[in-house]
Amino acid sequence: MPKVNREKKEPARAQQKAPQAEEKNTKTRSKKAGASRQVSPVKVAFLGGLEQIGMNITAFEYQDSIIVVDCGSSFPDESMPGIDLVIPDITYLKENAQKVRAFFITHGHEDHIGALPYILKELNVPVYGTRLTIALITNKLREAGILESAKLFTVTHGDTVDAGPFRVEYIKTNHSIQDAAALAIHTPEGIILHTGDFKVDYTPVFGDPIDLQRFAELGKEGVLLLLADSTNAIRPGFTMSEKTVGHTFDMIFGENTDRRIIVATFSSNVDRVQQIINDAEKFGRKVVIEGRSMVNFINTAVELGYIRIQEGTLIDVSRIKEYPPEKTVLVTTGSQGESMAALSRMASGQHRRVSIARGDVVVMSSTPIPGNEKAVAKVMNELSQLHARVIYQDTHVSGHACQEELKLIYSLLRPKYSIPIHGEYRHRHAQRDVAVAMGMQKSDTLLPSVGDVIEVCRDYCHIAGSIQAGPVLIDGLGIGDVGNVVLRDRQNLAQSGIIIVVVGLLKSSGELVSGPEIVSRGFVYVKENEDLMDDLRGLVINTVEDCAQRRITDWSKLKSVVRNTLGDYLWKRMHREPLILPIILEVN
Amino acid sequence: MPKVNREKKEPARAQQKAPQAEEKNTKTRSKKAGASRQVSPVKVAFLGGLEQIGMNITAFEYQDSIIVVDCGSSFPDESMPGIDLVIPDITYLKENAQKVRAFFITHGHEDHIGALPYILKELNVPVYGTRLTIALITNKLREAGILESAKLFTVTHGDTVDAGPFRVEYIKTNHSIQDAAALAIHTPEGIILHTGDFKVDYTPVFGDPIDLQRFAELGKEGVLLLLADSTNAIRPGFTMSEKTVGHTFDMIFGENTDRRIIVATFSSNVDRVQQIINDAEKFGRKVVIEGRSMVNFINTAVELGYIRIQEGTLIDVSRIKEYPPEKTVLVTTGSQGESMAALSRMASGQHRRVSIARGDVVVMSSTPIPGNEKAVAKVMNELSQLHARVIYQDTHVSGHACQEELKLIYSLLRPKYSIPIHGEYRHRHAQRDVAVAMGMQKSDTLLPSVGDVIEVCRDYCHIAGSIQAGPVLIDGLGIGDVGNVVLRDRQNLAQSGIIIVVVGLLKSSGELVSGPEIVSRGFVYVKENEDLMDDLRGLVINTVEDCAQRRITDWSKLKSVVRNTLGDYLWKRMHREPLILPIILEVN
Repeated sequence: MPKVNREKKEPARAQQKAPQAEEKNTKTRSKKAGASRQVSPVKVAFLGGLEQIGMNITAFEYQDSIIVVDCGSSFPDESMPGIDLVIPDITYLKENAQKVRAFFITHGHEDHIGALPYILKELNVPVYGTRLTIALITNKLREAGILESAKLFTVTHGDTVDAGPFRVEYIKTNHSIQDAAALAIHTPEGIILHTGDFKVDYTPVFGDPIDLQRFAELGKEGVLLLLADSTNAIRPGFTMSEKTVGHTFDMIFGENTDRRIIVATFSSNVDRVQQIINDAEKFGRKVVIEGRSMVNFINTAVELGYIRIQEGTLIDVSRIKEYPPEKTVLVTTGSQGESMAALSRMASGQHRRVSIARGDVVVMSSTPIPGNEKAVAKVMNELSQLHARVIYQDTHVSGHACQEELKLIYSLLRPKYSIPIHGEYRHRHAQRDVAVAMGMQKSDTLLPSVGDVIEVCRDYCHIAGSIQAGPVLIDGLGIGDVGNVVLRDRQNLAQSGIIIVVVGLLKSSGELVSGPEIVSRGFVYVKENEDLMDDLRGLVINTVEDCAQRRITDWSKLKSVVRNTLGDYLWKRMHREPLILPIILEVN
Repeated sequence: MPKVNREKKEPARAQQKAPQAEEKNTKTRSKKAGASRQVSPVKVAFLGGLEQIGMNITAFEYQDSIIVVDCGSSFPDESMPGIDLVIPDITYLKENAQKVRAFFITHGHEDHIGALPYILKELNVPVYGTRLTIALITNKLREAGILESAKLFTVTHGDTVDAGPFRVEYIKTNHSIQDAAALAIHTPEGIILHTGDFKVDYTPVFGDPIDLQRFAELGKEGVLLLLADSTNAIRPGFTMSEKTVGHTFDMIFGENTDRRIIVATFSSNVDRVQQIINDAEKFGRKVVIEGRSMVNFINTAVELGYIRIQEGTLIDVSRIKEYPPEKTVLVTTGSQGESMAALSRMASGQHRRVSIARGDVVVMSSTPIPGNEKAVAKVMNELSQLHARVIYQDTHVSGHACQEELKLIYSLLRPKYSIPIHGEYRHRHAQRDVAVAMGMQKSDTLLPSVGDVIEVCRDYCHIAGSIQAGPVLIDGLGIGDVGNVVLRDRQNLAQSGIIIVVVGLLKSSGELVSGPEIVSRGFVYVKENEDLMDDLRGLVINTVEDCAQRRITDWSKLKSVVRNTLGDYLWKRMHREPLILPIILEVN
């Protein structure tokens, strides 16, 4: 069991100490990192985390120990119809289960914690995280029914945790969720710094700015390898402070004192909600929190003291009609146009308690994640049609560092090697350009793929091999039982539908004794195409009779002839290629 | 047959006169418009054109005459799997075929001409357009094999065409394709001005700026109704001149004299291609035009003199290897990430003649159309992985008017009524906000839906009724044979796949004599789920036997029991809902 070592330097932070603290450790940080030289390199295995959204998980291995940073899920893309969730393939970790010491989680977003309920079932090792992060993981594991058996440990920024030869240090950063951390992983070969998702916010809404002093200190000490967030690496400049969104809200509230205000944002962005609540209190409005995940998040944040709300500000949605519209604010999910979220249901008139009224001001306080643009536009159109005023400009800032912030981090850390993470290839490539502009050798900045294993030590850093890795698809309760073949079938079915041809054949002679029954789905509207169906039936009868005469009783051969005959006919007649599925029932 | 009246005022334009000119008409414009007062209003029927992209088509009806402006197609959205193209439902026009005088086309983009090959087959009336527009329609109709029978007429900006009680005047505008026009439709009730797609470009690359003087003149005369492009109405400010993109290209060519340059853009944006060619000639590079639609477009533009290329600048793609890379430019399709376009094939290494090489500069000279963001990102990632340098900033300007341009048009025309067109509801709503800010009454600006019919005359403008209208889906050679039921089946098949259950039953008793055969597609990988299939077979046998004992020989009843039994089982076991399709073969 790894040990938590409490930060001693800053007594002001002592109150944030986790109750689970097990043992104090007063060794200075550098001692372990500077321990006797080991010959073997550290292996870094990328099980995920090299795409823009989701499935962030990276394993660090040294001799007989593995620690894992983050354990995220991702959402299915359009090539995965019917899939509910995507989690990483952890075959490698299972094969090395006895080595795995712990998961270290950087923050509580789904793409960093979402796979834990599935993966802890197979690999129940300790999980470390800051307070809000652990609280969110606790909620998830409780829902999955595995909270009892889980080993969760809360750490505070500044704490370090010993895990075999690794010592993992939590460092304060800023992000679009509170309590985010970078990890300094002290290894026998040197310090590996993993930024998690981060931005530099000098004036955060809650808590401290990113601990740039500690970054500088580590840089002085010497950083072997930097793994930094690339999400915004293609953007020049600096990401604005979350506080700037507060100014926009001030303006919106000030200009619309006679209207109801509805704000849609990410449920995890507690600071955003805090700023809305601040304005509500300033302008004398009641606040309704709406949408399941928003309610859960805000409840957790309130319980932990991460959000400050005056007594009486929050009201339940059932009481909203007791107040004049201009004295209420709704804070809701659905800013990404998710079809089942509260805002979408309001926009389509399907919300049980909230109807959009003429003149309502709806603030879309987020930017569409790539792929969600059309869904967001749909909701905005529906809101406009209900005569709501939709505001979306200057109502959001990103949680990720732009180029100038990356330059700052590179200049404080001056890493020997770097591996841009968390981003599509072009984003990671852009971070490499930043690193090169800062004076690094191009060859010292690696752009691995999922499944690659890096070996890094004082003398080199290179791709040394690869392991099994990639997405595991979850459909309903099934984990991994939908693979490429099934997905391809689904895509083909969606493109042109299916035609099923059933014939009953005498087992002995292949003579047609029943059918053909021809049924189609997703092909054409049959009632208006009876003649086409008649033609297909005729073709099948001819084909079967012909095969019977030719004494073909190899059913797979017969099926293939039927498939080809109908396929050719349909292509010629209508340029379509439905899936054709012949089924033979043998009759004695 | 409508008559073309040639513009007399500006002899400099006489050279642009169409060869098809039939008869001169020297009446001044205002005469007809000021003709004796008619009591009946003009009807404006929106058969399409109220969405952002596509299917632009509007009918104007006065007593026994109908004219139609534009005849566009649109692309299927994600709710229409397998659909190739979407065209408008013209039932209303067919029912009133004897009234329909002509199509007037504003410009040659697909969303304004794409449905002509289908619709002229059903309604072969004259089609009017400017020179490039008619040339592009000619190409389309030739491909569709109906050019011979089509009645195409070329007009020049400034010309008017008489069509029954309507006189249609072509007015020069600017857009992302050359030869775009606004239409002043002179009716007995007053002037209706249809902007088509437009922007205000004071310094166009080719030809004249928009004819603001004529807009002002018509405004003085009095405009009854304005139908204006809303695509960019949510954007403040002014759309930049196409020439500004030329400056960016100057810079890119100047900075990359040692590298090959590949530019992807819309094939219809001939001015963009002209600017690339200008730079190629300035910097001594050969130009390769690649991608079928790009080659077609540029050929047509060259033939008509809409593009100026020095002798020897263009080379065929097969000769590209004869020149050093830094002495060539490729201009290609695929800027929207279309999977079959030339750039995508280059990026994925599947282009027969062009391989992306380390250091190639690839310029993405377009903005992703909503819905294409992820496809564009995919191509950019692939290009980065091949070590190309991808440039996309400041390499595109829109072809549509922003708010300040709309204000200019409203202030020149001062219409009595207005109907924002060409945009999603929120875009049209934003144009209404502009109109109201310019002093119009909100009630004088209408926001109809597809299928609505407006009545407009000197005294009023209101929604008076509706007609059958909407999308007709084209799948292969089938037009309209895929409807909502089939689409819903396709969506369901994609979500969870299909399970087909076939049983052979004795006709008399319902006794199971063959099967059950259970086949699935898109459900699970069967080979790894044999036990599940066994369970399903067992369930079917039990259900069928149970029904036989209960003397149920109503097959539809039996099917429904099988469907429900398996459905319940699968939901409980795996939380999935595949389409379950029982098929019964009767055996004597």
